[in-house]
Amino acid sequence: MIDYRIDHIGVAVADIDIALEEYATLFGYRLLRGPYDDFAQQARVAFIGTACGKDSQLELVAPLDDKSQVHRVLAKDKGLYHVCYEVPDIEEAIAELRVKRCLLISGPTAAVAYEGRLIAWLYTPQRQLVELVEAAV
Amino acid sequence: MIDYRIDHIGVAVADIDIALEEYATLFGYRLLRGPYDDFAQQARVAFIGTACGKDSQLELVAPLDDKSQVHRVLAKDKGLYHVCYEVPDIEEAIAELRVKRCLLISGPTAAVAYEGRLIAWLYTPQRQLVELVEAAV
Repeated sequence: MIDYRIDHIGVAVADIDIALEEYATLFGYRLLRGPYDDFAQQARVAFIGTACGKDSQLELVAPLDDKSQVHRVLAKDKGLYHVCYEVPDIEEAIAELRVKRCLLISGPTAAVAYEGRLIAWLYTPQRQLVELVEAAV
Repeated sequence: MIDYRIDHIGVAVADIDIALEEYATLFGYRLLRGPYDDFAQQARVAFIGTACGKDSQLELVAPLDDKSQVHRVLAKDKGLYHVCYEVPDIEEAIAELRVKRCLLISGPTAAVAYEGRLIAWLYTPQRQLVELVEAAV
């Protein structure tokens, strides 16, 4: 079986700067990377981690414009909304997950937050939203 | 500042057995603990982890009865819905977070899934749902 490793947990927020401040103040999170403006994903994203440095990263995701899909997530009052898994080969992982009745929503497409590495979005049969990112070579 | 370590990410699911099967089949998750029937929380919960063994655990949370709060989460089409942080002293953490304008929703109360260790639920000012669990002595 393909190796799935959690890369990050995605959290929809209305405003990146307010969210960075809140996570830092309340729980001691540090900014690890970003913020990045990803026009293809219509999102502004930043990666944060707890002070202990061993936990999964959170990715704060804010809408970049009026048409951003992130508004739909926020309208449902969702905060946490996806798990992103790193996989060795994204085409192979997508093919395997489709055989297992996952629905490919978008991608694979290059992501600015990953220096052009490929990402893809899928729904599982139980309607969990999942992102894949291909491991760096 | 108090040390916050991610203990798990909570995922609301309609049925524990179906969710266990899906996460195992799709992403290779293993059952780590449970399922536990927690009547105080009106929830059936199970902890799972990826095959690599280093990622944050996911806690699958299903309603235990008709009155369970988990139904409210599922009604909003939420999957992932809370981060649980382990803290050295839960009373101290709650006091600090309330000073920082978090809202205590419930607890501290003993949790069956943690051998009686204390848990509590809070909303952050930006309305993120957070659980705390006190570290084992």
